[in-house]
Amino acid sequence: MPETSSARPAPRGAPRVGIVMGSDSDWPVMEAAAAACAEFGVPYEADVVSAHRMPDAMLAYGRDAHPRGLQVVIAGAGGAAHLPGMLAAVTPLPVIGVPVPLKHLDGMDSLLSIVQMPAGVPVATVSIGGARNAGLLAVRILAAADPALAQAMLAFQDALRAAAEAKGARVRGAAPGA
Amino acid sequence: MPETSSARPAPRGAPRVGIVMGSDSDWPVMEAAAAACAEFGVPYEADVVSAHRMPDAMLAYGRDAHPRGLQVVIAGAGGAAHLPGMLAAVTPLPVIGVPVPLKHLDGMDSLLSIVQMPAGVPVATVSIGGARNAGLLAVRILAAADPALAQAMLAFQDALRAAAEAKGARVRGAAPGA
Amino acid sequence: MPETSSARPAPRGAPRVGIVMGSDSDWPVMEAAAAACAEFGVPYEADVVSAHRMPDAMLAYGRDAHPRGLQVVIAGAGGAAHLPGMLAAVTPLPVIGVPVPLKHLDGMDSLLSIVQMPAGVPVATVSIGGARNAGLLAVRILAAADPALAQAMLAFQDALRAAAEAKGARVRGAAPGA
Amino acid sequence: MPETSSARPAPRGAPRVGIVMGSDSDWPVMEAAAAACAEFGVPYEADVVSAHRMPDAMLAYGRDAHPRGLQVVIAGAGGAAHLPGMLAAVTPLPVIGVPVPLKHLDGMDSLLSIVQMPAGVPVATVSIGGARNAGLLAVRILAAADPALAQAMLAFQDALRAAAEAKGARVRGAAPGA
Amino acid sequence: MPETSSARPAPRGAPRVGIVMGSDSDWPVMEAAAAACAEFGVPYEADVVSAHRMPDAMLAYGRDAHPRGLQVVIAGAGGAAHLPGMLAAVTPLPVIGVPVPLKHLDGMDSLLSIVQMPAGVPVATVSIGGARNAGLLAVRILAAADPALAQAMLAFQDALRAAAEAKGARVRGAAPGA
Amino acid sequence: MPETSSARPAPRGAPRVGIVMGSDSDWPVMEAAAAACAEFGVPYEADVVSAHRMPDAMLAYGRDAHPRGLQVVIAGAGGAAHLPGMLAAVTPLPVIGVPVPLKHLDGMDSLLSIVQMPAGVPVATVSIGGARNAGLLAVRILAAADPALAQAMLAFQDALRAAAEAKGARVRGAAPGA
Amino acid sequence: MPETSSARPAPRGAPRVGIVMGSDSDWPVMEAAAAACAEFGVPYEADVVSAHRMPDAMLAYGRDAHPRGLQVVIAGAGGAAHLPGMLAAVTPLPVIGVPVPLKHLDGMDSLLSIVQMPAGVPVATVSIGGARNAGLLAVRILAAADPALAQAMLAFQDALRAAAEAKGARVRGAAPGA
Amino acid sequence: MPETSSARPAPRGAPRVGIVMGSDSDWPVMEAAAAACAEFGVPYEADVVSAHRMPDAMLAYGRDAHPRGLQVVIAGAGGAAHLPGMLAAVTPLPVIGVPVPLKHLDGMDSLLSIVQMPAGVPVATVSIGGARNAGLLAVRILAAADPALAQAMLAFQDALRAAAEAKGARVRGAAPGA
Repeated sequence: MPETSSARPAPRGAPRVGIVMGSDSDWPVMEAAAAACAEFGVPYEADVVSAHRMPDAMLAYGRDAHPRGLQVVIAGAGGAAHLPGMLAAVTPLPVIGVPVPLKHLDGMDSLLSIVQMPAGVPVATVSIGGARNAGLLAVRILAAADPALAQAMLAFQDALRAAAEAKGARVRGAAPGA
Repeated sequence: MPETSSARPAPRGAPRVGIVMGSDSDWPVMEAAAAACAEFGVPYEADVVSAHRMPDAMLAYGRDAHPRGLQVVIAGAGGAAHLPGMLAAVTPLPVIGVPVPLKHLDGMDSLLSIVQMPAGVPVATVSIGGARNAGLLAVRILAAADPALAQAMLAFQDALRAAAEAKGARVRGAAPGA
Repeated sequence: MPETSSARPAPRGAPRVGIVMGSDSDWPVMEAAAAACAEFGVPYEADVVSAHRMPDAMLAYGRDAHPRGLQVVIAGAGGAAHLPGMLAAVTPLPVIGVPVPLKHLDGMDSLLSIVQMPAGVPVATVSIGGARNAGLLAVRILAAADPALAQAMLAFQDALRAAAEAKGARVRGAAPGA
Repeated sequence: MPETSSARPAPRGAPRVGIVMGSDSDWPVMEAAAAACAEFGVPYEADVVSAHRMPDAMLAYGRDAHPRGLQVVIAGAGGAAHLPGMLAAVTPLPVIGVPVPLKHLDGMDSLLSIVQMPAGVPVATVSIGGARNAGLLAVRILAAADPALAQAMLAFQDALRAAAEAKGARVRGAAPGA
Repeated sequence: MPETSSARPAPRGAPRVGIVMGSDSDWPVMEAAAAACAEFGVPYEADVVSAHRMPDAMLAYGRDAHPRGLQVVIAGAGGAAHLPGMLAAVTPLPVIGVPVPLKHLDGMDSLLSIVQMPAGVPVATVSIGGARNAGLLAVRILAAADPALAQAMLAFQDALRAAAEAKGARVRGAAPGA
Repeated sequence: MPETSSARPAPRGAPRVGIVMGSDSDWPVMEAAAAACAEFGVPYEADVVSAHRMPDAMLAYGRDAHPRGLQVVIAGAGGAAHLPGMLAAVTPLPVIGVPVPLKHLDGMDSLLSIVQMPAGVPVATVSIGGARNAGLLAVRILAAADPALAQAMLAFQDALRAAAEAKGARVRGAAPGA
Repeated sequence: MPETSSARPAPRGAPRVGIVMGSDSDWPVMEAAAAACAEFGVPYEADVVSAHRMPDAMLAYGRDAHPRGLQVVIAGAGGAAHLPGMLAAVTPLPVIGVPVPLKHLDGMDSLLSIVQMPAGVPVATVSIGGARNAGLLAVRILAAADPALAQAMLAFQDALRAAAEAKGARVRGAAPGA
Repeated sequence: MPETSSARPAPRGAPRVGIVMGSDSDWPVMEAAAAACAEFGVPYEADVVSAHRMPDAMLAYGRDAHPRGLQVVIAGAGGAAHLPGMLAAVTPLPVIGVPVPLKHLDGMDSLLSIVQMPAGVPVATVSIGGARNAGLLAVRILAAADPALAQAMLAFQDALRAAAEAKGARVRGAAPGA
């Protein structure tokens, strides 16, 4: 299971994770969430659902997510980023928010708009631009009740460790005075 | 027309300004918006409309605002403040956002969550805790098509000037070496 | 009514919106406000009015705006951005402030200089660099007393929705594992 | 299911959620996470696990969490807050991070230290001081594979809505000019 | 010349320094500027001049400052603090800006609104709440062409040194293990 | 007197303004201060004086500035910018600080390190990268006791006004719908 | 070796650590550095050395520190905090900087003024208000060449661990549903 | 001893300084620490040790550092930067932290994650990207008990001074009006 994402055949079956974003311009950031799901064989769907431009469809998406069989929602948005919080308001599912950095403020506005939710309506926020981690978090959430997936996550963590250890060799060789 | 707000008989007639907030705990900040409307004899209504706790009623409020005859909406919210932007998504009316400061971050999260709206859906943002200015801005918006109200705003500005000039006397007297 | 601006014949008639900025270097940001007005057929004017370099002409512009028949003023400025607030001090009209980002601080100085106005003198602040939203907010303000313009804004919001929905198709096709 | 937490008999059974913090001084913030679990009848455990003062026990806690049968870990920490991220490094479970505000910087350091995790090791971050939301997020995560818990969360959301609606009456009565 | 200010008889003669502020509520911060002038025998005047509430009088104050014989202007303001910059626009005199901290943001908005002036119109900005330093800076500016005042400033600096050295004795005695 | 700087013959006579910086890498920012002095015929000198790399020479520069006949010191520095404040500690002259932006933090560290001086030792701080304004402020300081220079500053302000007014024509022509 | 500091007899012998601060008002923050040294039996001295009020004595202190036999310097300062960096410029010893929080900005100005030193002149910066850690860091530095002190630090770390573990009992008992 | 680093033969002998980082992508920043050690003939080692990807090896590295004979550890990390603090938790040695700037937030997250350590576990933090200063700080720490190294540091400081003085000539020649 490589550390970086790459295209691969879509996992089969009904989607368990819904990945949504406010605009297709967010896709270059958000596709890493899809790739992470694919790496673990977790079926997902991806769509544009804008809180500000299609609010009814957005609420409908959130409200239908649980009855439709989704188990986790990942929502990416930037600036005054309302999508993750609004979806969390209408679904009992865990919602993961990805702060997408825009042209100004380096994503700090996106982060605060997503993470500072009022008591009662949590959003599981990841780092600015951290869509890959959003996908991995979705896998962990599913793995909490899925022993095979938990084993796969443990294997992934082993692979991370091995990759990090391999990087040490390069630095040990590159150090000028070493 | 005094500079500071105070209770007074409600202006009669159908409300022209809707003042909403996410929780009754925002009222101590938001009542200054109501007082400003009252000073200018502008009928208004005030209510709790939570984006995260009652999203359907929130969208319904926004969608009905224009048909019901409201001309301006003022929305106050704190933290991941989504109410002003979500209302702006479903009404053609101008929406004024008041960033309510919460326990942490001094309102910076509220400000960025309200002001950094994406292109297409503007929110007219005032200062952190600036509910009085939200009320005055609503009056200016109505005054743009109401000569009598415009005259009242000009008179208000004259009164502001007079009050500021009077303050000078106090400072001139207080200066230790003056 | 397309979502993005483009040159088009000027709306005829006396200007209803005044768009001003501190320097012609702000025009590449501010022209989106003009384009938004043009899309809705709202006559406007655009000019350079510098608070710091031509303060008398600036105050005169602000003071004459209402008698001349303008109904909304849009002012863009960067850094220690004083233009929107100073205009708001001398006109009863609603003033919309656009924080123009400069070389440093990513527009945070511009935003705070515009939005944090003292009680009594509101400025309707939009996002950093959000000139298009400033134009749309001006249209909403005019639409508050203009049923035809309100209908146009509702149609615009429908178009926004349709455009956002169309974007979903692209993302659904692009998802690697979908 | 009341919106605010209160002491109640402990849910019986093996703990499903582990709530840990760097010091007992974090407990006044973190107990709201425990209360949220208790409201939903979710068995939990609470303990002090310091990344910096007892690193071996901390890693052991993280490593044993999954084999011991925990399904979610909630970790609160302040300042250079390393506990949530370090636990996430050694468990395949979802880890929820609560930024605890300390004496200076209002929790901004805690937030960034928790949320800005590198690719590969996600932490589900909630708002500054948002321990109640951490508990609710843990419930949502468990509910993703537990229909009864999902129904309880839906009921909770209904109760939130009803409580918010009730607050409107108070504001409608309090508005001075209403 | 003591380090801290205290009331004393006003220096006689025509004022050389004009100390202005947007409201009498700024006086508790700004009086330290007056006291510093008084300590050096520099005649000054103090007044309320509000950029937003009395813009004409403000510009007149700025424009008359030089002809009236003032040599330095000190202006304190908070939030969207426009007073120092607007005065600098209409006088050739050096203008010193004091960022007055308001209820929110700890003076950061005041600082950026004052210091980030565009090229052509400088404001000599001191620290947040630093009115005493504003007064001392005015004295230095006058001293640049006034040998007696320069000697007084040198003596003041000697006194600062002596006071700082005396503080060492207290710390040397207080150190628990010293 | 053009608004932008350009090389010109050096003003003759003993320097009245000392322009110093921590490294020659600051010169591309700081030369605008020199150009502003030259525009007004104010003799100046420019040099590298590093607080951290040549502290004795730095203090000697500061201490000799007044006896040597300098009347104003301009100091530019970046990051933990200590030069302006240290010079202000050893001279009775007004010291103008220019926050030079470095590779990270966009000059915010430079600004705070310069402007937040303790009571007793003021630094007249200009905007981030605002070396031209530092030069103009030095001219204003000298002009406070020099009627001819004050007239030149008034003429400069007239030229600024004329240049700003000329820019309006370009915007009026460029507006797409105007 | 208790985790928190308390007065105790001064360690005997020539001081190895010099603890300095800009004013005696910094002592309530800085005394924790002294207490940490005392806990480890490390002789120290404490004094007021102001960069801005007694620059010559400050440089002399820094320059004499090494010849006098000091091995580490701890310097606390707030606002535009120049003391740690200036001392580092004139001594070959390691200098530890403590950002002291002042009335505004919560110590962020102090932190940036201390930590953002230019290449060539490092300051070992600890947390805002982190004087105890400054003392412990000084002990670690001395322990790098002192096996007995290194053993004492290991014992201290064991005590930290034991204290943290003891805190867990309290939380386990306090958890309402545990 | 030149001010800037360059490759040179490795100092012989057992390493006294351990330079570690979370990924080989940090090496372009961190190699300046190695170069500084090499300039002073201080043997060092460089390696990748990731807190989040290889936590056991990371703790083992920290725990073995002192018994293996290392005297100082330099750790660079970015974002939620936990490596320096976690190493400091398991070694009695002084740990120097280098905040590595990542794609967003300009290193502010890295800085706060490293410097804001809790009482008991200090990290000696240098500037954002300040790896060269980390190396120099390590040399100073070793020099505290090594007279020859202290002399070399004094010589280095002399060289810094000479280089800074030489830069003055360039500025004196470049000033347009000088």
